Amino acid sequence: MALLVEKTTSGREYKVKDMSQADFGRLEIELAEVEMPGLMACRAEFGPAQPFKGAKITGSLHMTIQTAVLIETLTALGAEVRWCSCNIFSTQDHAAAAIARDSAAVFAWKGETLQEYWWCTERALDWGPGGGPDLIVDDGGDATLLIHEGVKAEEVYEKTGKLPDPSSTDNAEFQIVLTIIRDGLKTDPKRYHKMKERLVGVSEETTTGVKRLYQMQANGTLLFPAINVNDSVTKSKFDNLYGCRHSLPDGLMRATDVMIAGKVAVVCGYGDVGKGCAAALKQAGARVIVTEIDPICALQALMEGLQVLTLEDVVSAADIFVTTTGNKDIIMVDHMKKMKNNAIVCNIGHFDNEIDMHGLETYPGVKRITIKPQTDRWVFPETNSGIIVLAEGRLMNLGCATGHPSFVMSCSFTNQVIAQLELWREKGTGKYEKKVYVLPKHLDEKVAALHLGKLGAKLTKLTKDQADYISVPVEGPYKPPHYRY
Amino acid sequence: MALLVEKTTSGREYKVKDMSQADFGRLEIELAEVEMPGLMACRAEFGPAQPFKGAKITGSLHMTIQTAVLIETLTALGAEVRWCSCNIFSTQDHAAAAIARDSAAVFAWKGETLQEYWWCTERALDWGPGGGPDLIVDDGGDATLLIHEGVKAEEVYEKTGKLPDPSSTDNAEFQIVLTIIRDGLKTDPKRYHKMKERLVGVSEETTTGVKRLYQMQANGTLLFPAINVNDSVTKSKFDNLYGCRHSLPDGLMRATDVMIAGKVAVVCGYGDVGKGCAAALKQAGARVIVTEIDPICALQALMEGLQVLTLEDVVSAADIFVTTTGNKDIIMVDHMKKMKNNAIVCNIGHFDNEIDMHGLETYPGVKRITIKPQTDRWVFPETNSGIIVLAEGRLMNLGCATGHPSFVMSCSFTNQVIAQLELWREKGTGKYEKKVYVLPKHLDEKVAALHLGKLGAKLTKLTKDQADYISVPVEGPYKPPHYRY
Amino acid sequence: MALLVEKTTSGREYKVKDMSQADFGRLEIELAEVEMPGLMACRAEFGPAQPFKGAKITGSLHMTIQTAVLIETLTALGAEVRWCSCNIFSTQDHAAAAIARDSAAVFAWKGETLQEYWWCTERALDWGPGGGPDLIVDDGGDATLLIHEGVKAEEVYEKTGKLPDPSSTDNAEFQIVLTIIRDGLKTDPKRYHKMKERLVGVSEETTTGVKRLYQMQANGTLLFPAINVNDSVTKSKFDNLYGCRHSLPDGLMRATDVMIAGKVAVVCGYGDVGKGCAAALKQAGARVIVTEIDPICALQALMEGLQVLTLEDVVSAADIFVTTTGNKDIIMVDHMKKMKNNAIVCNIGHFDNEIDMHGLETYPGVKRITIKPQTDRWVFPETNSGIIVLAEGRLMNLGCATGHPSFVMSCSFTNQVIAQLELWREKGTGKYEKKVYVLPKHLDEKVAALHLGKLGAKLTKLTKDQADYISVPVEGPYKPPHYRY
Amino acid sequence: MALLVEKTTSGREYKVKDMSQADFGRLEIELAEVEMPGLMACRAEFGPAQPFKGAKITGSLHMTIQTAVLIETLTALGAEVRWCSCNIFSTQDHAAAAIARDSAAVFAWKGETLQEYWWCTERALDWGPGGGPDLIVDDGGDATLLIHEGVKAEEVYEKTGKLPDPSSTDNAEFQIVLTIIRDGLKTDPKRYHKMKERLVGVSEETTTGVKRLYQMQANGTLLFPAINVNDSVTKSKFDNLYGCRHSLPDGLMRATDVMIAGKVAVVCGYGDVGKGCAAALKQAGARVIVTEIDPICALQALMEGLQVLTLEDVVSAADIFVTTTGNKDIIMVDHMKKMKNNAIVCNIGHFDNEIDMHGLETYPGVKRITIKPQTDRWVFPETNSGIIVLAEGRLMNLGCATGHPSFVMSCSFTNQVIAQLELWREKGTGKYEKKVYVLPKHLDEKVAALHLGKLGAKLTKLTKDQADYISVPVEGPYKPPHYRY
Repeated sequence: MALLVEKTTSGREYKVKDMSQADFGRLEIELAEVEMPGLMACRAEFGPAQPFKGAKITGSLHMTIQTAVLIETLTALGAEVRWCSCNIFSTQDHAAAAIARDSAAVFAWKGETLQEYWWCTERALDWGPGGGPDLIVDDGGDATLLIHEGVKAEEVYEKTGKLPDPSSTDNAEFQIVLTIIRDGLKTDPKRYHKMKERLVGVSEETTTGVKRLYQMQANGTLLFPAINVNDSVTKSKFDNLYGCRHSLPDGLMRATDVMIAGKVAVVCGYGDVGKGCAAALKQAGARVIVTEIDPICALQALMEGLQVLTLEDVVSAADIFVTTTGNKDIIMVDHMKKMKNNAIVCNIGHFDNEIDMHGLETYPGVKRITIKPQTDRWVFPETNSGIIVLAEGRLMNLGCATGHPSFVMSCSFTNQVIAQLELWREKGTGKYEKKVYVLPKHLDEKVAALHLGKLGAKLTKLTKDQADYISVPVEGPYKPPHYRY
Repeated sequence: MALLVEKTTSGREYKVKDMSQADFGRLEIELAEVEMPGLMACRAEFGPAQPFKGAKITGSLHMTIQTAVLIETLTALGAEVRWCSCNIFSTQDHAAAAIARDSAAVFAWKGETLQEYWWCTERALDWGPGGGPDLIVDDGGDATLLIHEGVKAEEVYEKTGKLPDPSSTDNAEFQIVLTIIRDGLKTDPKRYHKMKERLVGVSEETTTGVKRLYQMQANGTLLFPAINVNDSVTKSKFDNLYGCRHSLPDGLMRATDVMIAGKVAVVCGYGDVGKGCAAALKQAGARVIVTEIDPICALQALMEGLQVLTLEDVVSAADIFVTTTGNKDIIMVDHMKKMKNNAIVCNIGHFDNEIDMHGLETYPGVKRITIKPQTDRWVFPETNSGIIVLAEGRLMNLGCATGHPSFVMSCSFTNQVIAQLELWREKGTGKYEKKVYVLPKHLDEKVAALHLGKLGAKLTKLTKDQADYISVPVEGPYKPPHYRY
Repeated sequence: MALLVEKTTSGREYKVKDMSQADFGRLEIELAEVEMPGLMACRAEFGPAQPFKGAKITGSLHMTIQTAVLIETLTALGAEVRWCSCNIFSTQDHAAAAIARDSAAVFAWKGETLQEYWWCTERALDWGPGGGPDLIVDDGGDATLLIHEGVKAEEVYEKTGKLPDPSSTDNAEFQIVLTIIRDGLKTDPKRYHKMKERLVGVSEETTTGVKRLYQMQANGTLLFPAINVNDSVTKSKFDNLYGCRHSLPDGLMRATDVMIAGKVAVVCGYGDVGKGCAAALKQAGARVIVTEIDPICALQALMEGLQVLTLEDVVSAADIFVTTTGNKDIIMVDHMKKMKNNAIVCNIGHFDNEIDMHGLETYPGVKRITIKPQTDRWVFPETNSGIIVLAEGRLMNLGCATGHPSFVMSCSFTNQVIAQLELWREKGTGKYEKKVYVLPKHLDEKVAALHLGKLGAKLTKLTKDQADYISVPVEGPYKPPHYRY
Repeated sequence: MALLVEKTTSGREYKVKDMSQADFGRLEIELAEVEMPGLMACRAEFGPAQPFKGAKITGSLHMTIQTAVLIETLTALGAEVRWCSCNIFSTQDHAAAAIARDSAAVFAWKGETLQEYWWCTERALDWGPGGGPDLIVDDGGDATLLIHEGVKAEEVYEKTGKLPDPSSTDNAEFQIVLTIIRDGLKTDPKRYHKMKERLVGVSEETTTGVKRLYQMQANGTLLFPAINVNDSVTKSKFDNLYGCRHSLPDGLMRATDVMIAGKVAVVCGYGDVGKGCAAALKQAGARVIVTEIDPICALQALMEGLQVLTLEDVVSAADIFVTTTGNKDIIMVDHMKKMKNNAIVCNIGHFDNEIDMHGLETYPGVKRITIKPQTDRWVFPETNSGIIVLAEGRLMNLGCATGHPSFVMSCSFTNQVIAQLELWREKGTGKYEKKVYVLPKHLDEKVAALHLGKLGAKLTKLTKDQADYISVPVEGPYKPPHYRY
């Protein structure tokens, strides 16, 4: 795609695949609204006061139908928004078109190159002369990373006059990041510093991004306050678990139409995501084997009747492999060579280094047969036997299907809205330092409460006497901070 | 689509949506072959002897990837084949293209009109001057019906000179059938008699078609032998049950992306198909309510923790409705009016009269909003509230997804191959009268056995002593005919 | 126990463990009545007409609380009843006491010797000078067997003057049977002939007994009509399946308190009983491996995510072994030697030859440590490692727990009442020959219907139009005979 | 029982039901050892060094077979032990006898009166002239409470000369506590002060006791350090969840033999215990309805397909009621009056005030019919309809069955051993203040690791590179403190 920004008739910038899909996107957004009671409740509760009046928000988060409802909740509360996707395959083009046409500046399409991906990220952060955004909604931390790397490079440049050197790294993606920063530096050597100055804070969506934030906090390099949305109970114990339970089989079916019943499936990692994946596969009739490093999670898997082995033990006997670890180098090309013909290999974690795609792509004589987009058969020359890799080793549920369903994303995104409101409300009060924060439990409980009515649930109310007996307020929060749910 | 037959370079007739999808179809057929061990075993066992040499086979059965593997198994055994789909939405166009290009005469595309549908059926039955096919593979019984109706009309015509009168019926679809027969009569008043004469028999795939056959047998109007493949254990207890367990959520997700967890789902009917649907929804986290007429099936539902109520009890509280009854008039427009906004209504049974589509379409002031093909929102004028109907009330798993997965269809279709072989082998021996037959249990067991290796299973072998103790042969069959599995 | 018949104050004979438990038995019988709606409905419907007036019924069926409600249903309908248990460990002594005191002649206690067991059986069949019973309720077929063997012996004796010779067989139990017959012959050489003459028929409860009946039918040796209650859908698909799903873990827990979660469990056989056992173990968190001879049942197991292997493959890795085959020689002492220390071995099938108890008991140097009644640890001398055998290899759910719960037994026993009524009503009409019959489907459906109200279910009613469409009567039966549920 | 202390031949004190059951207890203890790998590993690792040499440990924790293995692990590590149960119904008399005979001073029997219960507690704390124990293992906090109340009373007495007045409270149980303290004060006005002085700390087993400790910490009244074992992941997410999943149905079956399938079950509370109970009931085929005050837990229930309503909504429709809240006044007598005949009401939480037993017992005209110990039918005079209450409203899994199985208790109790070791090792170092502590994560992971081998699991090992990538040590701990599992 030619990397040229386009403009709507109203003058808003965008770059999407096909603006003619906007109507279709709008129809699906309307369906999703009915399934996202938390976001709609935010519009009803906060909309009239327009609390985001004047706030510029940049989002780097899968540009899907569900995200569209999030974006339009932010704009309904008064924000101005620019958006990009945080994964090259995760954009739903009709959602992007509808938002670009109706609500916000969008730079995203399904099947970006890495080059395009970072161009989009940069576009989303670029609010023109006044600097960057006031707030960031991040997923995986790439927008945050770009600013941090930019600031770092500007400091080096200020001190030494040296520009960042893309050839200093082997990592193809990081070369692109450095190139962008280098080119930016030439135009404005204070670009990222200005962004940093303006920024009130970031709210981060996912485990991987949160891990990066805690590392920066530990190193003392975090440049602005961050709210860890991932670890809201109503996020990590819902989206990660129930979202994946839904979207893993969805991705498998859309990509391969494989019958899951009767198959042997290996789930690498038994955290919240792994638990959701294993549950889905087991329920569909697979025999599930888990690999784990953590003895506690391993024991949980055993209690659910799952076998716990190492990948080496099962690599040549299993039919389906899913990585959920958030770590790297989980399934290597040497594993893949030993697999059964047409074994399915996929990753539902954030980054594409859980599966050794580099090793696979550079394996001598390997042949790639694209069945359809995001579904490739890789044939090894020695055996003439192939494996099927989904979404090029990236987030398969978003690459091969449509990701998590609206209802569970409503929980996650209501946390996002609340986190953004909190950061914005407290800007300048000093309440939030350059640290990572979790939302307080009463807000977490509120998010859950907003989702009960849709499902017909009725809560029991504590009497004052009962509340005193267990030492909690009648209105909650009901649990101590360490409670694990 | 203009209803003109096209020809391949080799001269074989076809009519498909897009021949350029043949390569894609071929790739998916090759994947499916790995998942269909029963069919591939038939090719290995019977292929060399070419038992179908000289046999002309017409199929009326969803033209999917799995059916493609069936067709190419029939041709690998020596048959000449013509094929159409048995549902207007069930064709996979890439499968149709690959088969049309490589193996058989195909007349099928996704999204046929009823007019087109019956044109395709007629094309599939038309083997030129020599009459019709030697054998029929039927699903739902439409090819069988056309011949029976044709013969009936020809008899009337012969006796009275009267042509069939399409206006004699209210049923739009039956009007088309009569028109076709009428037009055929004008050309050749013995057309269907010739077909009947030539026909060795039919093997019928599904509950609905089987029911029609038993009725004809009871009435004494059945014109040729029929093998009831549906009631092979390895069909009805696998395809109907495990196939639907797989493809119901698949269809729901592809059509609506709805989160199933937390929802209230109503499954009308708790036969094999209903059991599969209910299991899938329960496992995905829905609360499932069953409606049933049969107290035994109702008690089975209760034993699985499902609630059994009438549709009236739950119509305004549920989120998802699935019909699986094979009966008609299950969900009427009066029910639909009372449903929650965006309730999902779909049918996984064979015919589109389980859901009152006619009532819905003709409801005064109702508005149809097509979200995407096979996903429509119907809005009632009184409430401005809408329901979502999948696949226009037809087979939702084939209309909105890709139907049952290859592995379970391999069980069903291996039964088909065996049934066709049996009919062909016994033509002229008088073994099969104009009745409905079920395959003998040892063949049923053989079908199952062919599918164990793929899943890594190992059977235990009886000793002679043990076999005597329970009075079965060492090699089986192991169960009495009335055994229910 | 001294084998002396005792008498109640009213003069009814009995032999039970402890008459002082009658009050406790009565309390539990009253609880069970609330859980057995089918039997209570029979009392309400048929009680007033006293259809069993004059009928003498002998039962050989586990003398439990549930059976007590069956017996008192028979007496409520006018029958006179004598009863024994069909397993040495299955009697609940408080149930036996309550019935002996209040309703029928009972000869049964928990922990009979084989000698005592057959003495009880003989007592239950002995109605004094007038011959045997009019009707038999049999479970496993021992009462039926005794009469058949008796008649056979009397014929030999009449022809040759030869008495049966217990030493002619190795089978310890059959030696006892022959001894009883021999001793009886000396007193009355026509004893069993008289019984045969008088007998109207037998209704048989379980798979094992039914198998014997079909063999006798095939051999032409069946002496009186038999109704196969086991193959009523509301018996075999309920009691065998859901009953075992309940009572297998119950027996395991009461006998060993073992945690099932995390364990590897082997279920030998995947018929209805095996399906129930496997489901229970899987749900409790075990990893379940199935052994099977039948490829169809094996494929069903695979579709549920269970592994299918041979016993040899897993004998040294599993923690729990359950036999459900109805065959013999399933787990041999050579298997047991290879098991892990404290592996649990049990049988839920009818006879104690599924597990090689004889091989175990006679293994040189083996040590038996009784943990508590029906729970023994057997230690092999070579390894000093032990296995735990439940209920001496007999029916573990009745030996170690209380068998199937009342509700599901109400289904089974309502079939028994209906079968007995049918035999008695048709005595002398010639409707039933010396063959094995199954109850007609409308009675099967009636049994189910009687159990729906208790669980709050509401059936949907067919319209006449719908019934015609699917060719069934509005009131049922709703399924063809071959339907498998 | 006469409250006289007895002595073994070796002079150790005890009071148990029946010393002749010691052999049976020993056999079951030996079985349990095989199922408790964590405790056995502690014996192997720490036994040789005798770290508890000189330590006097008092335990107040259900005197079961599993606890017996805990006690003998403590003694194997050198401790001297005195023990009582923490529930009047939870003692297994054969376990108590074996321990009393072989290993420790035990004061416990099944079916204590409250008077007897507190006498036992006092005996367990009384180590003679030297004061109380060095360490306490507490469950529910009664031993801790007695000391705290004693110290409080002694302070009042010292200042004012006033003795505690049992008549100052309505609570019958607290009257007994005050009586004991009053009587003790007369003998030794510094008795509890001496205990407090000597005490190194307490490790507390369960949610209820932990809640009390945190309240005392908050009030500043905690007299010694406490380790919260309950909130080790390997305790609360295993014992509370998987233990109850096992022992709830076990208790229901042993007490009532009720068929769970098909029933409507209400679980009050959806914390770890409630989750285990709901899972067990659902798996057994019940339809489960949850009541909750916490919107997050409610939403979790919904995601699993459970209905969330208030007790009032379902009180007259459900068959089984289980309280798991740890709160009071959950099921009141007014609820019970509205229940179906023979509805089952039970509590699996710690205290008997979740169910309004007082209201039931004092209801005018109510009739109590004891079916068997711990199973009572209470009949209301107005309706002559009854409900069945288990274990007099107390811990039904221990009252009606044998509590949690050995394997999961091994996890809990290994935490106890480690906590006790930690307190003892650090006595005098000042590491632990008068606060509540949780064990560090690496010990939690160690507990899990000790239980994997028994279940045949194999852990994956991180490479250094991978560990660095996710910023954890290669050997763990692998998760941040806030991780929820």
